[in-house]
Amino acid sequence: MATAGKSALTARAEDFPRWYQDVVARAELADNGPVRGTMVIRPWGYGIWERLAAALDERIKAAGAANAYFPLFIPEAFMQLEAEHVEGFNPELWVVTHGGGKALEAPVVVRPTSETVINYYFAKWIQSHRDLPLLVNQWSNVVRWELRPRLFLRTTEFLWQEGHTAHATEAEARAYALRILTDVYQETIVDVAAIPVLVGHKTARERFAGAVRTWTCESMMGDAKALQMGTSHELGQNFAKVFGTQFSDTDGSLHYPWQTSWGASTRLIGALIMAHGDDFGLRLPPALAPVEVVVLMVRDDEGVRRAAVQLADDLRRAGRRVHLDDRTDTGFGRRSVDWELKGVPARVEVGPRDLAEGNVTLVTRHRRTKEPVALRRLLDAVGDLCDRAAGELRDEALAFREARTVEATSLEAAIDAGASGFARVPWAEVGEDGELQLAGESLTVRCLQRPDGTLAAAGESDDALVAVVGRAY
Amino acid sequence: MATAGKSALTARAEDFPRWYQDVVARAELADNGPVRGTMVIRPWGYGIWERLAAALDERIKAAGAANAYFPLFIPEAFMQLEAEHVEGFNPELWVVTHGGGKALEAPVVVRPTSETVINYYFAKWIQSHRDLPLLVNQWSNVVRWELRPRLFLRTTEFLWQEGHTAHATEAEARAYALRILTDVYQETIVDVAAIPVLVGHKTARERFAGAVRTWTCESMMGDAKALQMGTSHELGQNFAKVFGTQFSDTDGSLHYPWQTSWGASTRLIGALIMAHGDDFGLRLPPALAPVEVVVLMVRDDEGVRRAAVQLADDLRRAGRRVHLDDRTDTGFGRRSVDWELKGVPARVEVGPRDLAEGNVTLVTRHRRTKEPVALRRLLDAVGDLCDRAAGELRDEALAFREARTVEATSLEAAIDAGASGFARVPWAEVGEDGELQLAGESLTVRCLQRPDGTLAAAGESDDALVAVVGRAY
Repeated sequence: MATAGKSALTARAEDFPRWYQDVVARAELADNGPVRGTMVIRPWGYGIWERLAAALDERIKAAGAANAYFPLFIPEAFMQLEAEHVEGFNPELWVVTHGGGKALEAPVVVRPTSETVINYYFAKWIQSHRDLPLLVNQWSNVVRWELRPRLFLRTTEFLWQEGHTAHATEAEARAYALRILTDVYQETIVDVAAIPVLVGHKTARERFAGAVRTWTCESMMGDAKALQMGTSHELGQNFAKVFGTQFSDTDGSLHYPWQTSWGASTRLIGALIMAHGDDFGLRLPPALAPVEVVVLMVRDDEGVRRAAVQLADDLRRAGRRVHLDDRTDTGFGRRSVDWELKGVPARVEVGPRDLAEGNVTLVTRHRRTKEPVALRRLLDAVGDLCDRAAGELRDEALAFREARTVEATSLEAAIDAGASGFARVPWAEVGEDGELQLAGESLTVRCLQRPDGTLAAAGESDDALVAVVGRAY
Repeated sequence: MATAGKSALTARAEDFPRWYQDVVARAELADNGPVRGTMVIRPWGYGIWERLAAALDERIKAAGAANAYFPLFIPEAFMQLEAEHVEGFNPELWVVTHGGGKALEAPVVVRPTSETVINYYFAKWIQSHRDLPLLVNQWSNVVRWELRPRLFLRTTEFLWQEGHTAHATEAEARAYALRILTDVYQETIVDVAAIPVLVGHKTARERFAGAVRTWTCESMMGDAKALQMGTSHELGQNFAKVFGTQFSDTDGSLHYPWQTSWGASTRLIGALIMAHGDDFGLRLPPALAPVEVVVLMVRDDEGVRRAAVQLADDLRRAGRRVHLDDRTDTGFGRRSVDWELKGVPARVEVGPRDLAEGNVTLVTRHRRTKEPVALRRLLDAVGDLCDRAAGELRDEALAFREARTVEATSLEAAIDAGASGFARVPWAEVGEDGELQLAGESLTVRCLQRPDGTLAAAGESDDALVAVVGRAY
């Protein structure tokens, strides 16, 4: 177990970006890589990612997609085929020019996303209507040039999943893009990560390079800025036409399939930090915590050790992820601070004084409350705590977002409100010209949605929709 | 579900490499990537990898290592620090020279393995004896220049896990390297993949670039050639010295830690194909099969459909991974051949004639036997089949290896025998000169082990050991 520095965290209210950096470093989540903008995800950060990825993967599979793996290296020429895709990604490419000690005959790019290479294979694999729908997902690393890298939020290399599907009809493709948005992304973010989301679609200005519609989940962070959590794109027939992918229908006629792509990344770890963190560090929903309960020996004493080992065993048998902290050569206070920094939901402190009364002390991380608990009641008390924690974190984040969201009726009011939170303003008051004005104030339209917060239907005009405006990461 | 071509596979006896290629293509395991030597792992192949990786990951975690992630891009200068490592890897590097539209100030290599970048961080993270042992593992892609790529066996990019650890003493590092060899690699390969292995250590000529000792698991493939399945290296203090990693002991004195690294890759999918495959395709041990049981509707008929859906549900409820094949617009024979190619352990054929007698037909893939089974007995029969399959595949592979292994007493005899299998010959008869002679015959020493097949102890001389000689992939 590595150590944490002794200084307190920067207060969130004082300097949020610095607080974020402090948490990432002190909770041992990540480090800067040796090549600019790259990142080392340390075991505690990776443990969170493993649980997030498993939650997403389970839902992706339930939606019928199968995992596959496509190459890291993409011929540079592939990237030049789809016009908007070129424009969106060319400035961000990393290019390999040498291999095996020689200059390559043709440079290859390190994938920034895999639409092109995957569509190259879709063109081979899709021949008949029987081959549709084709639903694949990939877990991988991708690489993009980043001018202002920030750990987890915007890094040169990040880990993600990217799904790619092909369907016989536009309606089916659209329904699938929405299914992924709600049943995979929204559900994982809200139910598992305990972060409330707003759903909607992007304006033309903000949508994915090569998409006809981008659906998004947007959340408010602890500094009232927005973070895009996961996006699901309707690609229309753009890539199919470029790669010549066609299927023969039951009557033998040839058609281009309708496609989707969708992704979520290690950026979600940044969201967890910023949506739930407090001045004492990370606060993890139990489902994503590598350790749900830490049992701390207050000091080294035979009775304490026996009780701590027994409690840890009991908790493990009850199905909890438990860590026994018996590093009594390190001060108890310092160890408590470290576990608090790391956001472990429940801390059980085992000391001789409490034990003499048949108790231990249970500390609830997200509320920072301490209470003595009788040994025989501990399993139930930890169970209750873990059952309640996610809901309480989510309620808190939701209350914060609601307090920082203003219903605006004009672009000016939206610009005012956007400086300190979200503004919901009729899209008719904004429009493409308004978006330019927002950009001048470092604001963007995060998504368009119906006034009641639901998604627009197919063919529904944007005219009656509401724009959610905010500053974004 | 995509389709398979109609032609039969090349017979193994006729042309084993071509048979291998046929299986990879027809079972839809992988495709060649657009950049030379790269690979697309298709859903069926990736499903096998997910199960293999999970089996390895579970055992790696049980051995105390935590997963983490280090960057894909490594400064070129890092690769030049450890002399043997430089020599081993420099000819294989892929180099990025451009990013964000400009030439990079310093080129970066795409990781061929991560010893250098991980040791750069170990030097930061390891200060005290309290920080040891440090046990990390990474699941990632790596890239190496390959002159003669072959899908799964030798590809420019492959997926793997690489573990890296640091310990206070040489004895502890050695014990850990061996624990990984036996409790992670040997156990996964033998118990889960059902492939028998020989364990031992590499000669100086064959060991990993930068290691002081390389431990290995070696298996015999269906053409009697050897495949290296997983290796675990004792790195001594080589990398610690190069990166200046030191820890202060309890008495305040400074020491270099002792290190290990170890890896296994998607090459194991190639091993599964070649160790168990037959002239009809892949034969998968149930634990690694994405689908354990396929329920095939022989033709579309209401009774058939009702029975097939019911059986599939019953099998699922019994915990089996089941696929219901209701594509009755494709011929039954063709679908049977496809599932056989894919190596699904159990096939349940549901047709009207059998049903009239209260039966279905159960086909055991690895034995290619068919038998009528009463509907009420099917769950038990499938359970029995899945319980027996791995053991029977392993016994078959072991019998083959034993039949193709010769106890040789001289180098000449070993060279003779090595042409058609393995030779076990006293290392004293071989030596470094003998290894050169073997190389001239396209043979290598796969590993050194005691005459009884066990591993040499610390400090034990190679003189009394046996060399396992064979042709290798």
